[in-house]
Amino acid sequence: MPFEHGDRRDRVRAALAGLDADAVLVTRLVNVYYLTGFTGSNGALLILAGGGACLATDGRYRTQSAAQAPDVDRVIDRAVAGALAKRAVLAGVGRLAFEAHDVTVEQHGLLLAAAEPASLVSLGRVVEELRMVKDDVEVALLRAACAIADRALADVLPHIAPGRTERAVAAELEARMRAYGGDGAAFETICAAGPNSAVPHHRPTDRVIAAGDFVTLDFGARLAGYHSDMTRTVVVGRAADWQREIYPLVAAAQVAGRAALAVGADVQAVDAAARDMIVTAGYGEQFPHGLGHGVGLEIHEAPTLGTTATGVLAASVPVTVEPGVYLPGRGGVRIEDTLVVRPNGPELLTTAPRELREL
Amino acid sequence: MPFEHGDRRDRVRAALAGLDADAVLVTRLVNVYYLTGFTGSNGALLILAGGGACLATDGRYRTQSAAQAPDVDRVIDRAVAGALAKRAVLAGVGRLAFEAHDVTVEQHGLLLAAAEPASLVSLGRVVEELRMVKDDVEVALLRAACAIADRALADVLPHIAPGRTERAVAAELEARMRAYGGDGAAFETICAAGPNSAVPHHRPTDRVIAAGDFVTLDFGARLAGYHSDMTRTVVVGRAADWQREIYPLVAAAQVAGRAALAVGADVQAVDAAARDMIVTAGYGEQFPHGLGHGVGLEIHEAPTLGTTATGVLAASVPVTVEPGVYLPGRGGVRIEDTLVVRPNGPELLTTAPRELREL
Repeated sequence: MPFEHGDRRDRVRAALAGLDADAVLVTRLVNVYYLTGFTGSNGALLILAGGGACLATDGRYRTQSAAQAPDVDRVIDRAVAGALAKRAVLAGVGRLAFEAHDVTVEQHGLLLAAAEPASLVSLGRVVEELRMVKDDVEVALLRAACAIADRALADVLPHIAPGRTERAVAAELEARMRAYGGDGAAFETICAAGPNSAVPHHRPTDRVIAAGDFVTLDFGARLAGYHSDMTRTVVVGRAADWQREIYPLVAAAQVAGRAALAVGADVQAVDAAARDMIVTAGYGEQFPHGLGHGVGLEIHEAPTLGTTATGVLAASVPVTVEPGVYLPGRGGVRIEDTLVVRPNGPELLTTAPRELREL
Repeated sequence: MPFEHGDRRDRVRAALAGLDADAVLVTRLVNVYYLTGFTGSNGALLILAGGGACLATDGRYRTQSAAQAPDVDRVIDRAVAGALAKRAVLAGVGRLAFEAHDVTVEQHGLLLAAAEPASLVSLGRVVEELRMVKDDVEVALLRAACAIADRALADVLPHIAPGRTERAVAAELEARMRAYGGDGAAFETICAAGPNSAVPHHRPTDRVIAAGDFVTLDFGARLAGYHSDMTRTVVVGRAADWQREIYPLVAAAQVAGRAALAVGADVQAVDAAARDMIVTAGYGEQFPHGLGHGVGLEIHEAPTLGTTATGVLAASVPVTVEPGVYLPGRGGVRIEDTLVVRPNGPELLTTAPRELREL
């Protein structure tokens, strides 16, 4: 889609004016993809303020880069950033903006030498900020990725039973997502049973699911580079009293968090909408993470919904809402959806039921 | 395995003497895992030259980090590097070594402020260099990961036929690797058919496999953090003359490359052993990548076997050997194995047949 990529590069150029820079060197691969369509594992992009762009990659990607990014110049050189810095200097660039949140201290030393006599200035997260707001094609891909995850969950839930392992359930979820057209899992699928459900980022083990366990499934599908993200927690057998206390609390906090998603909403206020309910109920210490995060070409991207986050939400920004309460040694609950901020209230992309299920 | 992790941290301390530093701040997550066993997605490790170590992570990993790394101190703080820098200063550290190949320019600014009045010095790739040489448990995990990939390939090869898509074959390979106990794919499985096989890092598409296609499968299994890596290329139906020319060439070059793996061998000489044959045959331009790479906790790690690489091989270093010849628009061949450098000749971990198969 060269048209979109060219548009996106123009938006980066517009941001350049405020930096007093003549060109941008984009080194974060996901940003290079966003601005060109190139999917290789080694690449960088030079965008000249006055027009023109050049993609650098190595010989492995000669054919692929020409096919994926036909509308930019190309240079084939393994040292992609240095090669583009030299090219910038030849093009008369005096101030080159770079991604200081991506370039390492070691790479910076090499870049300074290659860019001589040009000076380097930080671009900041300009590309990440552009990426927050999704266009219709991006939202359509996210919606499809979420639908794949929803369908896979519906297939797998009836098979969660005593005797199965966390690992087997996670593998089945991933296989179903592929069967429905996903390119793979959006991240390593979490299936956490019993006390393991109190570990927010537990990795599936050979633990056998037992009656009375909370089972938390946190998973998503990847589709054409975009990621879905959802979590459901179920009880195997009849829920105990402590489970009947924390599940509805988390569910209600999740509803409150979703309801707070509005154009112009402060990201801390969205977090607080859910967190305040959990704190009031006396479980504030047991909710040790942020409420949610942006999702798109990365599973975690801007914006962050959290107690120390800053900024306000714009329309067409997809985010997750995922409060949790975790009781070490016993178990935990997390409920998560992916939604898109819209002027008339958020659009839910993940739709699996959220009431307490006793399997 | 606290015993190994403590040993590994002692080896880092031994390297510190040459740097005149009082402590090391390890920020690369894979290195933190190597030195502690902690698998979370946010963490850093402080190793004091005089003894003692402290792992930092955030609240999501409070329970998990205590279970995985019981033999180090812990601090729970989302800003892991800054928190440990402050702790280093309190411990009297005057010179703090950090991973300049991992810390970004932006993070470096924050780290300098947090470490005040201590100074920062580059640690270099000390941990990556330690990681090159694998112990017996690591090699056993790699061997098992390679066996899983071998078995999966044997299952899938008979199903490669006209009418199937690249994507379906790749999905079947990944499903078989899971069925045999793998934790997942070591990287995004490559299945490249026909002209796509001329793209070294092609991603599977809905392209339908046709008679006469070269089909290249490049894949591996992940097991307990370790990665296997192998490539086989087959012909669907009868091989054409051009296919009969380049396949044996690549196979012979691969044998030569494997034979060059020896303790003390220069990494450029290993690359040249295979490359020279391909250059002599007139296909040097069609082999645009290095011969191989180390493999372990990362799918690509030190050492590199390539035309500009430096260093010599040590015993117990696992590497891949993967020459290729790619003819744009027609197709390509790559043959790859994972081996371990041994005093009496390399140990092959991937064993699937390498002769030309016409399916």
